Amino acid sequence: MSIEISKASSHLLEGMKVESTSRGFKMILDEPIEAGGSNTGMNPVEAILCALGSCQCLITKMIASNMGIKIEDLKINLQGELDPTGYQGDTSVRPGYEAIRSTFIIKSNTSEEQIKELITQVEKFCPVGDTVSNGTNLVVDYVVEK
Amino acid sequence: MSIEISKASSHLLEGMKVESTSRGFKMILDEPIEAGGSNTGMNPVEAILCALGSCQCLITKMIASNMGIKIEDLKINLQGELDPTGYQGDTSVRPGYEAIRSTFIIKSNTSEEQIKELITQVEKFCPVGDTVSNGTNLVVDYVVEK
Repeated sequence: MSIEISKASSHLLEGMKVESTSRGFKMILDEPIEAGGSNTGMNPVEAILCALGSCQCLITKMIASNMGIKIEDLKINLQGELDPTGYQGDTSVRPGYEAIRSTFIIKSNTSEEQIKELITQVEKFCPVGDTVSNGTNLVVDYVVEK
Repeated sequence: MSIEISKASSHLLEGMKVESTSRGFKMILDEPIEAGGSNTGMNPVEAILCALGSCQCLITKMIASNMGIKIEDLKINLQGELDPTGYQGDTSVRPGYEAIRSTFIIKSNTSEEQIKELITQVEKFCPVGDTVSNGTNLVVDYVVEK
């Protein structure tokens, strides 16, 4: 076992704008005007879809290369389904995504069978996919500064 | 029940670079040089931490406002623990995060009790937090283009 630690930091700015950084890279998320934000970036539930799609792309590339499959182009369309009454306070509804659908559009000349096996492997080994589908131990702690 | 659909699309570019878009906003993720990337952005497991931290910031702001708590400043430090042997093929190890730790640094003059209650509410109602800690139904499908 060789645990690797990834780090990030999020800072609440004015309105609904949040600036996050990880290894010096910056991500600005916000909410649309109609949700009380200033629409300067995608929102957090959209950002998690992008993290998932990106991870699925990279794992597909890695596994395709191991399997000797040539991918000419890969695009993944993602769709997340969420009932906002959940985070707005209705405790009979979960606040997070009920489901996420991920459709791979793969350009390749390899056999249908090979592609099917590739997708099966991607579902098995994708880090963000596993985190999102199987959940993870989320530990929240806090420090108060006066 | 009023399900809202969020959408995103990820496109594998050269190397380990992935460009994702959602509502016209762009996110470039990549891997560090030592992981075979060109280090032009954070990677997907870092990006999911940023999505989580941002969501926790916004839900904190929303709930604090409902509770009449004044937050002068909020920063959240996140740390994810992952064993890379999992996504590299060792099926005895999960490929995703074993744990994510989120530390809120809250500047506020409100009572310790109120802050404790605030954090409890944030843990209960955060959309990305719920998705990540309880998991979601992830459905993967594909289309092959010759």
